Amino acid sequence: MKSGLEIAQGAALRPIVEIAAAAGIEDGELEPFGRYRGKVSLSAMERLSGRPDGKLVVTTAITPTKAGEGKTTTSISLTQGLGKIGQSVVLCLREPSMGPVFGIKGGGTGGGYAQVVPMEDINLHFNGDFHAVTAAHNLLCAALDASIYFGNPLGIDPGTITWPRTLDVNDRELRYTVVGLGGKAHGIPRENSFVITAASEIMAVLALASDLQDLRTRLGRIVVGDTVEGKPITAEDLKVAGAMAVVMKDSIKPNLVQTLEGQPVLIHAGPFGNVAHANNSIVEDRIALKLADYVVTEGGFASDLGFQKFADIVCRSAPRTWMPYAVVRRIWPRTSTS
Amino acid sequence: MKSGLEIAQGAALRPIVEIAAAAGIEDGELEPFGRYRGKVSLSAMERLSGRPDGKLVVTTAITPTKAGEGKTTTSISLTQGLGKIGQSVVLCLREPSMGPVFGIKGGGTGGGYAQVVPMEDINLHFNGDFHAVTAAHNLLCAALDASIYFGNPLGIDPGTITWPRTLDVNDRELRYTVVGLGGKAHGIPRENSFVITAASEIMAVLALASDLQDLRTRLGRIVVGDTVEGKPITAEDLKVAGAMAVVMKDSIKPNLVQTLEGQPVLIHAGPFGNVAHANNSIVEDRIALKLADYVVTEGGFASDLGFQKFADIVCRSAPRTWMPYAVVRRIWPRTSTS
Amino acid sequence: MKSGLEIAQGAALRPIVEIAAAAGIEDGELEPFGRYRGKVSLSAMERLSGRPDGKLVVTTAITPTKAGEGKTTTSISLTQGLGKIGQSVVLCLREPSMGPVFGIKGGGTGGGYAQVVPMEDINLHFNGDFHAVTAAHNLLCAALDASIYFGNPLGIDPGTITWPRTLDVNDRELRYTVVGLGGKAHGIPRENSFVITAASEIMAVLALASDLQDLRTRLGRIVVGDTVEGKPITAEDLKVAGAMAVVMKDSIKPNLVQTLEGQPVLIHAGPFGNVAHANNSIVEDRIALKLADYVVTEGGFASDLGFQKFADIVCRSAPRTWMPYAVVRRIWPRTSTS
Amino acid sequence: MKSGLEIAQGAALRPIVEIAAAAGIEDGELEPFGRYRGKVSLSAMERLSGRPDGKLVVTTAITPTKAGEGKTTTSISLTQGLGKIGQSVVLCLREPSMGPVFGIKGGGTGGGYAQVVPMEDINLHFNGDFHAVTAAHNLLCAALDASIYFGNPLGIDPGTITWPRTLDVNDRELRYTVVGLGGKAHGIPRENSFVITAASEIMAVLALASDLQDLRTRLGRIVVGDTVEGKPITAEDLKVAGAMAVVMKDSIKPNLVQTLEGQPVLIHAGPFGNVAHANNSIVEDRIALKLADYVVTEGGFASDLGFQKFADIVCRSAPRTWMPYAVVRRIWPRTSTS
Repeated sequence: MKSGLEIAQGAALRPIVEIAAAAGIEDGELEPFGRYRGKVSLSAMERLSGRPDGKLVVTTAITPTKAGEGKTTTSISLTQGLGKIGQSVVLCLREPSMGPVFGIKGGGTGGGYAQVVPMEDINLHFNGDFHAVTAAHNLLCAALDASIYFGNPLGIDPGTITWPRTLDVNDRELRYTVVGLGGKAHGIPRENSFVITAASEIMAVLALASDLQDLRTRLGRIVVGDTVEGKPITAEDLKVAGAMAVVMKDSIKPNLVQTLEGQPVLIHAGPFGNVAHANNSIVEDRIALKLADYVVTEGGFASDLGFQKFADIVCRSAPRTWMPYAVVRRIWPRTSTS
Repeated sequence: MKSGLEIAQGAALRPIVEIAAAAGIEDGELEPFGRYRGKVSLSAMERLSGRPDGKLVVTTAITPTKAGEGKTTTSISLTQGLGKIGQSVVLCLREPSMGPVFGIKGGGTGGGYAQVVPMEDINLHFNGDFHAVTAAHNLLCAALDASIYFGNPLGIDPGTITWPRTLDVNDRELRYTVVGLGGKAHGIPRENSFVITAASEIMAVLALASDLQDLRTRLGRIVVGDTVEGKPITAEDLKVAGAMAVVMKDSIKPNLVQTLEGQPVLIHAGPFGNVAHANNSIVEDRIALKLADYVVTEGGFASDLGFQKFADIVCRSAPRTWMPYAVVRRIWPRTSTS
Repeated sequence: MKSGLEIAQGAALRPIVEIAAAAGIEDGELEPFGRYRGKVSLSAMERLSGRPDGKLVVTTAITPTKAGEGKTTTSISLTQGLGKIGQSVVLCLREPSMGPVFGIKGGGTGGGYAQVVPMEDINLHFNGDFHAVTAAHNLLCAALDASIYFGNPLGIDPGTITWPRTLDVNDRELRYTVVGLGGKAHGIPRENSFVITAASEIMAVLALASDLQDLRTRLGRIVVGDTVEGKPITAEDLKVAGAMAVVMKDSIKPNLVQTLEGQPVLIHAGPFGNVAHANNSIVEDRIALKLADYVVTEGGFASDLGFQKFADIVCRSAPRTWMPYAVVRRIWPRTSTS
Repeated sequence: MKSGLEIAQGAALRPIVEIAAAAGIEDGELEPFGRYRGKVSLSAMERLSGRPDGKLVVTTAITPTKAGEGKTTTSISLTQGLGKIGQSVVLCLREPSMGPVFGIKGGGTGGGYAQVVPMEDINLHFNGDFHAVTAAHNLLCAALDASIYFGNPLGIDPGTITWPRTLDVNDRELRYTVVGLGGKAHGIPRENSFVITAASEIMAVLALASDLQDLRTRLGRIVVGDTVEGKPITAEDLKVAGAMAVVMKDSIKPNLVQTLEGQPVLIHAGPFGNVAHANNSIVEDRIALKLADYVVTEGGFASDLGFQKFADIVCRSAPRTWMPYAVVRRIWPRTSTS
């Protein structure tokens, strides 16, 4: 029997331009990244705004296990099945972190004959969204510390800073650190921690933003700490929100790939369930719902976390409230990891 | 008068597939990243191996100033001029760091009417090479600290570790840090510093590697510290060199863009002159020399640094020693930054 | 009305040799420290071992206030009163920390006309006991870190170290620190905290020891952390308990001073109530009970802490269990601090 | 042959009151600390001010060795010899650090039959001077950090602080530290180092002060760092110099002990030669010169350090410049450490 990895590596992929065309994405709306993946311009959302939304099918699960629950595999199977019987379908997923790829959990692209490809590219840098979130996040850190270092004109109390640094790597050594050592020329000492990129508030913001301008506004509202008087300090106060949005300008666009059987798959944003809303981006859902009759998606983590957040946050974030057409529960944990 | 930024943003770019075709890069050898930039497969190097090398023209300069010297602008002008008079020419440049983009120095794509475009993309994430170097670098850090944390089977002496962490951001706060705090569950305390990505040894390795296999081998030879007995510990010893190479698998491919006047430009790797060899990648030069009669390139920093390293390292790293056809000196610092 | 300070500074003290003689301490058993304070040799304990014990009166109190409860003042008053009516009495107190002397709480020598003198000497260095505890404590720290630094022959896991450093100063800056920075020549980085000297386990040990040999044994049993295999490491394992005992050789002797009305007062050891047993030393009580018909003492902190520990620990630590003759409760907090 | 330690421990000491009386110190001017050591009140200096100074004999040496040079042993021998032939003589020495006592160097009380006793007491806590310097030093630290913590009314720039903390222990782990960790409630993070007590500026101040009032003034002038504007901040600015002087009130008095042959020895202050003036205190010399016809003293470290500082600093610090009567050079290093 072939392993999941062998199946993924042996797959014959269709060029992404074909996938896009079949899905109804126009030529000027696709930016290719290599031959088998691309980004979809938000202009598609506008062009299709008159079309009615498709039906939204959500996969969720009971208590997650260490190896994951099989939600993604279920969602892919469902998508491939709907495609098989001739239905118009788009799958919407979250982007996997690169960190865990090198750990036990593996990537987030399904398994067996229910996979999204090109698997390796998706699990590694994909189209740079995680890197952009990391860069924008740390740019805000640098602006914050530089403001304190150069005379602290905003009167920030370093003891109140809640904005961590971030890296997309599983590295326990970075959880608790002291930065700014080495004497006066090299910053101001303070305690600091690194979170993984999926846990960055910018990832949550990306998943919720409705377009680049909205992203810019949300980035500006991020609170990093307080002044000595207790007034919150935002990225806007630090005059860095514009630069952060520039760093994120391509990341706002959902990424397009395909299932092993050629159905279009949008993958965009990957906010952590324990600190954020655990679902893929709003713009991804919005575009997908205009492109297909059925949109399959999944709520991150178990039903009491990801699906609840899907209902409470995602559905209410859309221009008009979405109502799931069907909820697919994944009850039985798979018994082995392929 | 239009500013450099206005000129770049107003430029009418030719699709990257046209640029590639005109340069003699075959269809299967180009991976597009968006419409105006791409990566060139190393298979092109093999296909063209029988062709004689073009002439290598090197731009260098006297003592650099804070605003830079104008080497890049000179190189671009020269390329555009050679193109204008009908010569076959390719320009080879280094990739700019994202960090300084938000500082005084600005990007590394020339100025005025002598620019490389799409300027913003090149100065930001470009095609992900800096992010991949960052990720591979920090993956090695995590593997190193995890090895010490989980029983230290290699007998590494933490006091001898010379491998820093890296981030592509100008952040003085990260120069000297203590990591691994928070108690026994969160790592082992030690002093640590972050360097910018351009200063990562992996960037130097990328610029010197002749192909992915050679990159893999060079990554494995990286020394991170010593055992208690004084024996050097490498990435190979930590069994992480393979994963690092996977992270770098697309980064080994040079990036293709264009001048404002449509000449092909390869941009690849950006090693720091003060700690590495300060010139673009060897594979970039090798491909360019097969594609064109004239290859214009530049030595990083002033002649006593970048050009010397070009002569001593780059020229000797090729399969057979290169001899510059011409050296263009940029003597007068430009009087204003555009 | 005179302040407590004025009363103390204006007091006419009797030479300590007179106080000692009146209390039945022989000439060779007193070591004078200046004219008005001394240390009592433990040989007195042996000489008087045949005498029956006096009656032990304990002062305790309801919930303590910020300014303290007045237990010490009550105890001194009681002692002075018993002296006034011709009873043979000795007062036993704990030694005050120097740290809080410079804070709000003030010293621990009573107030108004119920004071122990020489007040300033008692509240400052007294006869060096706190300094000796500090020195012995930090000597153990140095031995511990030196053992790890020089090849770690005992296999200590630095992450398990529970032995802090200590200083007799109120200094919040020292609560959580990282030590061993500055590179390989200057130690091994680890997290470390400083406690005040009263909170040192050595202070608790001093208060419980029955003589210098017993102190030596107890010091040797102090656990500072574990080996990698989970075996506890003691001061004895580090071969430093003997040196610590040498540092403590004079500290084992109780200190002798007087009330404003000339009754003998023993003051010895000052273990913190929240981490140790909160009462003065056992040897102090033992000597006092042989010298006088009535021994007045106090349980540190409120009755539910200090008095309980007095009953559970002090009374059972004696060669034969003590039973308090009377318990004086201090119910009403004093309304002003003098 | 008896070891130095056996000789010291077997010595028959004369009560310190006898030594004092024989030296011309009046009863009220001696504060006994135990039976064989005492402190001499500065009032003696005043009482004897009319007497002419004795002759000042200085011992110095060529390049010091690891084991020390034998200056102290030479000085003691000379003192014992002068006493033997009936001359009136007082020996003046520095106080030893407790730290090195537990290291290779051993104490500072001579060797063989040329020793100062009680050796153990002198090498350990002696009469508390080192502890008082430690306490006063760290009290200033606490006041400094508390001032910054509580709103920083003086505008101190933490990056400019030059005042270390101190402990009288050989502990490499404390050389470079970060303090103030643990969150906002536990101080403000900053880099900090500990020096040994002999290297404290307060030790230097103690050795130079002419009386308690002068000590108070000198303590107030200690600079700990700068304001943001570059104005120096002193202990006086921090309103802690008075408290520091109170902590030092007994330490200003020289300590009296004896040689193995009963000559009076003053021992007072022990400033480090590499950061301070390396000689015993001025008040010690002043009192000794009034008491005896010959005063033997020694310059710390080799002649090019200690003797030069003796000539340049000590001799000029006296009310009228002193001129050494004789300089004894110790040329040959002793060949073994006894």
